Amino acid sequence: MPQANMTPAFIGIDWGSTHRRATLLGADGAPASARSDSEGALACAGRFRASLEALLGDWPEAGGASTVVMAGMVGSAAGWQPVPYLEADTPLSALAHHLVRIGDAPSGRRCFIVPGYCLHDEQGAVDVMRGEETQLFGALHHLGPEAADGCYVLPGTHSKWVRLRQGRIVELRTYMTGELFALLSQHGTLASAMRGPGTAAGMSDGVDADRHFLRGVDDAAARPALSHSLFGARARVVTGGLAPANAAAYVSGLLIGAEWADAQRLASRDEPVRLIGEPALARLHALCAAHHGRHFESLDARQVQLAAWRALASESPTS
Amino acid sequence: MPQANMTPAFIGIDWGSTHRRATLLGADGAPASARSDSEGALACAGRFRASLEALLGDWPEAGGASTVVMAGMVGSAAGWQPVPYLEADTPLSALAHHLVRIGDAPSGRRCFIVPGYCLHDEQGAVDVMRGEETQLFGALHHLGPEAADGCYVLPGTHSKWVRLRQGRIVELRTYMTGELFALLSQHGTLASAMRGPGTAAGMSDGVDADRHFLRGVDDAAARPALSHSLFGARARVVTGGLAPANAAAYVSGLLIGAEWADAQRLASRDEPVRLIGEPALARLHALCAAHHGRHFESLDARQVQLAAWRALASESPTS
Repeated sequence: MPQANMTPAFIGIDWGSTHRRATLLGADGAPASARSDSEGALACAGRFRASLEALLGDWPEAGGASTVVMAGMVGSAAGWQPVPYLEADTPLSALAHHLVRIGDAPSGRRCFIVPGYCLHDEQGAVDVMRGEETQLFGALHHLGPEAADGCYVLPGTHSKWVRLRQGRIVELRTYMTGELFALLSQHGTLASAMRGPGTAAGMSDGVDADRHFLRGVDDAAARPALSHSLFGARARVVTGGLAPANAAAYVSGLLIGAEWADAQRLASRDEPVRLIGEPALARLHALCAAHHGRHFESLDARQVQLAAWRALASESPTS
Repeated sequence: MPQANMTPAFIGIDWGSTHRRATLLGADGAPASARSDSEGALACAGRFRASLEALLGDWPEAGGASTVVMAGMVGSAAGWQPVPYLEADTPLSALAHHLVRIGDAPSGRRCFIVPGYCLHDEQGAVDVMRGEETQLFGALHHLGPEAADGCYVLPGTHSKWVRLRQGRIVELRTYMTGELFALLSQHGTLASAMRGPGTAAGMSDGVDADRHFLRGVDDAAARPALSHSLFGARARVVTGGLAPANAAAYVSGLLIGAEWADAQRLASRDEPVRLIGEPALARLHALCAAHHGRHFESLDARQVQLAAWRALASESPTS
């Protein structure tokens, strides 16, 4: 008696710099189980195959999944196998046709890497993504090809602002928001300015933290030179105008506010900025959007990623 | 037979976060000797008096210097004794009247701290300096009160752009240029992008390094969102448009260029931007000035500091 729903068929892995999240889809495309660990690309240097074998070997339900598709930093120069970026004129809808097969896959598995994208603008600037193209491909399937046109923000270590038009990535601007926040929180003079009771308030949902966050958003708009506005956080602390406990929320507002001040023009006034990301970051971006009088729509990042794996499972090469 | 020139009379100490430089002036105001060490304010927490006693005890010529004047982070909340900032309407020429005497000075010495300045602008922003006010006070004496009016940049960890008018600090903008460069060079994704042969080229005087530095200056002007332009350095490296060996020079150009794009309006077109700082940084700022078609004048930082100590030696309280 065939049990189609019980036949594991496909594994999608979001394999970033510091984390890895693997999703097993049944033959019907429904998620059967998932695994997360901190075997990111940085930790796996030189042993990607062994790390994947260990993941699969410890995952009985994954035994029958012959196809593994991986997205993210696993395809970078520091990853398993360097996969060239696609140029922006390659439609996202064709992503499955550009998967790159891994030469040294574990026995019995067909392993592919999703290529990232690079965009050159008219002024000669270049920007890149790896991993986010798979989320955008998921959004395309989740929302439908026509409804998916528009402006997206994918916040995180490197926050991406993207404009999709007719299934193509036509604009891309990356901001080092999360990385700068981490650097400034851990090292240097702002870290000591932030040190104080309740420092974690920067990402809290307290009314007071939100007020300081939005002051940062305003100041980022008024003072576009970030290296100046960041020093202003220190100046406010040492002159008593800002309590150390609120400094992290304020700095977070300066950094995320700098994105909005620069990037919101990617969206026209009457269309929403769509966010794909963690709820805590979605909440801060929703505050920014309301503050700037912009429409905002938060998509469920897990659903979007799942839509991507489901589409790749049905579209990826079968031989 | 009196030997006026041989009577040590005054010690000025530039006591910053990480370094300390002490200058001994003879009774005639000429520098007699100097000492530098890494006993900065961070290293001396809780033992400033002992650290000063150790410095003086090991410096025979300094034995007769009864007056010690200290500038910089020694007067911060993390310093020897917190000294409130002066408001901007206090003329620099009156600086000697605002020295704050230390209560627990070493026996036989009268020790003073020079107060820093804070400026509030019309938009409610605040900026601060500690140490640079003494250099500006020195410039006032070095150039003469009328000639000293104008626009100054004092580059470093926290780069200060200042406008002096009639001996008052009327504008102040601080940029975290040096601190951000250090953070980005040591940690995170740009540090790995910069890793490669000749990385130190960022501060070298090679023609190629200058070319990459100036590309950064241009890109900073074209893309004012620093968290975006910095990611662009990484994007250029991973797409092969920028060799890792040149990334430090390019990032240095982005950071110093961001200052110039934002702050050069402090100077009118026909007046020079004056720099007080290290020769290596002066050279990079001179490149920026020429690139932007601005007049530029580099002052000798040692001479300016000496002019400050000399004036403070003659103007500081004698009882």
